[in-house]
Amino acid sequence: MATERLIYLPLGGAGEIGMNCYVYGYGAPGKERLIVVDLGVTFPDMDTTPGVDLIYPDITWLAERKDRIEAIFITHAHEDHVGAVGMTYGQLEAPIYARNFTAIHARRKMEEHGHDPAKVNVVAPWPEQVNVGPFTVGFLPISHSIPESSAMVIDTKEGRVIHTGDFKIDYAPGVGEAFDRDLWAEVAKDGVKALICDSTNVFNTHEGRSESSVGPEITRFIAEQKGMVAATTFASNVARVRTLAMAGVEAGRTVCLMGRSMKRMIDASQEAGVLPDFPPFIQPEQAGDIPRENLMLIVTGSQGERRAASAQLARGKFLGISMDEGDTFLFSSRTIPGNERGVIDIWNQLSERGVDVQDDDNGRYHVSGHANRPDLVVMHELTKPQMVIPMHGEHRHLREHAKLAESMGRTGVVAPNGTCVSLSGNKPETVEYVDTGRTYLDGSVKIGAMDGVVRDRIRMALNGHMIVSLLVDEDDAPLGEPWVDLKGLPETNEMGESVSDIVEHDLDQAVRRAGDNVLRDDKKLDELLRRAARNSANSVLGRKPEVTVVVSRLS
Amino acid sequence: MATERLIYLPLGGAGEIGMNCYVYGYGAPGKERLIVVDLGVTFPDMDTTPGVDLIYPDITWLAERKDRIEAIFITHAHEDHVGAVGMTYGQLEAPIYARNFTAIHARRKMEEHGHDPAKVNVVAPWPEQVNVGPFTVGFLPISHSIPESSAMVIDTKEGRVIHTGDFKIDYAPGVGEAFDRDLWAEVAKDGVKALICDSTNVFNTHEGRSESSVGPEITRFIAEQKGMVAATTFASNVARVRTLAMAGVEAGRTVCLMGRSMKRMIDASQEAGVLPDFPPFIQPEQAGDIPRENLMLIVTGSQGERRAASAQLARGKFLGISMDEGDTFLFSSRTIPGNERGVIDIWNQLSERGVDVQDDDNGRYHVSGHANRPDLVVMHELTKPQMVIPMHGEHRHLREHAKLAESMGRTGVVAPNGTCVSLSGNKPETVEYVDTGRTYLDGSVKIGAMDGVVRDRIRMALNGHMIVSLLVDEDDAPLGEPWVDLKGLPETNEMGESVSDIVEHDLDQAVRRAGDNVLRDDKKLDELLRRAARNSANSVLGRKPEVTVVVSRLS
Repeated sequence: MATERLIYLPLGGAGEIGMNCYVYGYGAPGKERLIVVDLGVTFPDMDTTPGVDLIYPDITWLAERKDRIEAIFITHAHEDHVGAVGMTYGQLEAPIYARNFTAIHARRKMEEHGHDPAKVNVVAPWPEQVNVGPFTVGFLPISHSIPESSAMVIDTKEGRVIHTGDFKIDYAPGVGEAFDRDLWAEVAKDGVKALICDSTNVFNTHEGRSESSVGPEITRFIAEQKGMVAATTFASNVARVRTLAMAGVEAGRTVCLMGRSMKRMIDASQEAGVLPDFPPFIQPEQAGDIPRENLMLIVTGSQGERRAASAQLARGKFLGISMDEGDTFLFSSRTIPGNERGVIDIWNQLSERGVDVQDDDNGRYHVSGHANRPDLVVMHELTKPQMVIPMHGEHRHLREHAKLAESMGRTGVVAPNGTCVSLSGNKPETVEYVDTGRTYLDGSVKIGAMDGVVRDRIRMALNGHMIVSLLVDEDDAPLGEPWVDLKGLPETNEMGESVSDIVEHDLDQAVRRAGDNVLRDDKKLDELLRRAARNSANSVLGRKPEVTVVVSRLS
Repeated sequence: MATERLIYLPLGGAGEIGMNCYVYGYGAPGKERLIVVDLGVTFPDMDTTPGVDLIYPDITWLAERKDRIEAIFITHAHEDHVGAVGMTYGQLEAPIYARNFTAIHARRKMEEHGHDPAKVNVVAPWPEQVNVGPFTVGFLPISHSIPESSAMVIDTKEGRVIHTGDFKIDYAPGVGEAFDRDLWAEVAKDGVKALICDSTNVFNTHEGRSESSVGPEITRFIAEQKGMVAATTFASNVARVRTLAMAGVEAGRTVCLMGRSMKRMIDASQEAGVLPDFPPFIQPEQAGDIPRENLMLIVTGSQGERRAASAQLARGKFLGISMDEGDTFLFSSRTIPGNERGVIDIWNQLSERGVDVQDDDNGRYHVSGHANRPDLVVMHELTKPQMVIPMHGEHRHLREHAKLAESMGRTGVVAPNGTCVSLSGNKPETVEYVDTGRTYLDGSVKIGAMDGVVRDRIRMALNGHMIVSLLVDEDDAPLGEPWVDLKGLPETNEMGESVSDIVEHDLDQAVRRAGDNVLRDDKKLDELLRRAARNSANSVLGRKPEVTVVVSRLS
């Protein structure tokens, strides 16, 4: 009976797509030495997180065990994997390891949050390995959509675990290493204890297509257009940006990159020397000199982001360029669920300007960067793990992926965020449920998802906000009548009467009826005014607003 | 040269999918007699209309010409066509015409808003026609997804106009009349001046499939399931509710309808006698007696609505029924853009309960109620209109549909909301742009989209709300220090310091520095405190909140 154990604990990314953060531990129970794989962010939305700037995993569990953290490994430079490195470093203070291109991004995140970028160490790809405590870890190249994407090969006394990171099986991915089947077979040949595996596209039953398959289609499409062409994709989909640029040049156009994140990503790629074949491109200020039928813009904003280049072009001019009748806009991207309305709004604004919009046409102009179901099967068969632990997916993806593994005779484990699984022994065992959650970066402040701040914002948005003020003199007698200020509430009711007047009248009645014991007790007076305000508002407006009571005492 | 003219003016539904409202006029310019086709609603969302209950077209233009309105015609009983009848009647007061099933819904809307349901007149289908002023109008049956859907055949001295309403070309629609090609050819044979035509699916290049094609697939699917089956679709998609119920019975299950709108729609259908073949079903309180493998629930909430049956089942028990491991949930529906996140959240909640979720599988378990592009071509060719005016679509749909018409040698007219088009003479001419917009039903109050109420709600949600209070004595001197209340803002900054304390200190400094001219002037004092509060908040929180200033003067 072993006294040490190997554990797996997702703190983010298992049960959602975004803010990836996975912990592995090895050692005596409760004393495991820990490593972290990825520290990513996810993005807020108006429905659930209005006003929030960024969301990342609640790392309280890790911070409380800070002395046991050996290292942090980052699989690749997408925001949902590297985005929280800077924000969390102060709580973790463990050395960070990444490949060169990823490290450029990680260092920038560290600097943005006032930490020493030298804490980020560059690791060469497999067969190089890093020894940290009881772990030996290597970066095994894997095809995705950004340079130097890697799986983690994590060795302990318990054997080998492979954490795929994001991947697809692509033998011509354009950027990053092509999938090397032989290398993977070699790495797996002595047995793999567990495969922790990307689940994003488990519901897609088609075999995945190579990035190289979309280039010719996009070239043909651009060549057919008579006016200016703009194309958008995620700036961080470096493979697609390259595919688009090459297609533009192939179709005889001058390529112009627009949007800050687009420029930053290409700069980093060129700094790292991982985009040797990226074609020449011009800056937006030079674009005016190019006849529009010879111009191709590659722009940010494929998800309808309001401040990105595509939204600005849809609304009018951006950096001196505007799109008109006869121009064409290609969305070489898939819309992430939740972003549809914003994307469609842009399509309609472009339509109003006479611009033809082309979506991905069911994959003709876009392929995913993640493995489809048949490719997951290839990965399972290639690595032959004892167990498959699906990650990088919502609950339904994890469950389906585990079922897929089971259907192929392997052990499939559904382990959503907070599920601590022991991988020791012959079968996985859930040993603990850990509290997990989300932390919000809100302006310059970090707040917990459960702090009530965002809840109050949502309530004000749904209910409006009424402020009730009352002056009370030294003898606890009301000085004048209560009055109200409205925010996000109608000023008049259906009869055209003043809402404030009616509510103030009702509040005055309530105060007059109140006994001294209420008037002298802040809490009771607050409660009285709040209740009266809500009831009065309900009768006059048909809704109960949020109420803030401000009692000023002359004392 | 004619001194009278025929005009078309969309007030809602052209440039959006929802809140349909189209005006036709005939007469001397500026004195046209008017009819209205449809008065529908659209639904709010958190992004743009938090807290709003319903949205319908701003009918100010119509209300100002109330004496010229001859009648209101309702094509069918979907909410985006009939939903605003009750809310707007007080401003319009014109007789309403509809077929029997639609009239049942229209009368309920009238009653809900305190109007006389007898103002709704029932009209038999074509060849019956109604004479209203210079118009002769008939209800021409057309296949859609709800009983008695009809196109409007609108005759004036200028000839015949056909307003399709919502439609698909379905020869076996299950409910409502099958598409009658011969009848349509007959109606169109003497020439059609303009076809005002549904554009929803213009981008779908496949020939539309009949409602009758999904029944067998759904039956087979249900028969394969071992546990309880629940299926959801729009309650107002009466055709699908019937298809699901018949499939359930065919697969040997007892069918139970759940959700208020589901029950109301089926009740109305049975009252109108338009669902003679709807199979027997049980009430939720009887469902407990049926073994779960013999039960099929048909429930509301296909769009992820939080209070609908499907969301409640996903969260736990609903009316005593809960879904468990081994059960199956079928979404026999398409998710409307903007609703994806809510629907997916339900899928994941069901997954967490061990319930298998089946989506429409690219149309295997769902067909649209609207005509695809090839079916639009059929409609154009069948009616051979001089001009096609696309409606019921976002701008991109209208534009694409007009292009389609042009490509077939007809005149295509893009006329979004507010575009008043004269159909007189040989070609359409835009004669006026009319201000249009949206009205919100908000609690019991109607507010304009531009009133600023919703804008303030959105700002509070995005920025938080700070209330600044100050007492000023009879001599315009501050009485004590200013203080702040926070709502939707963090209480402490990154250092753990109290945000209120810091802002109050800064406000106190500002007040101390203020001159008498500021302290005695409400407006200047408000401005001073607001600016100081925003700047102080920005330095301590990294964001500028909404600020309400409450100055109390002892005077």
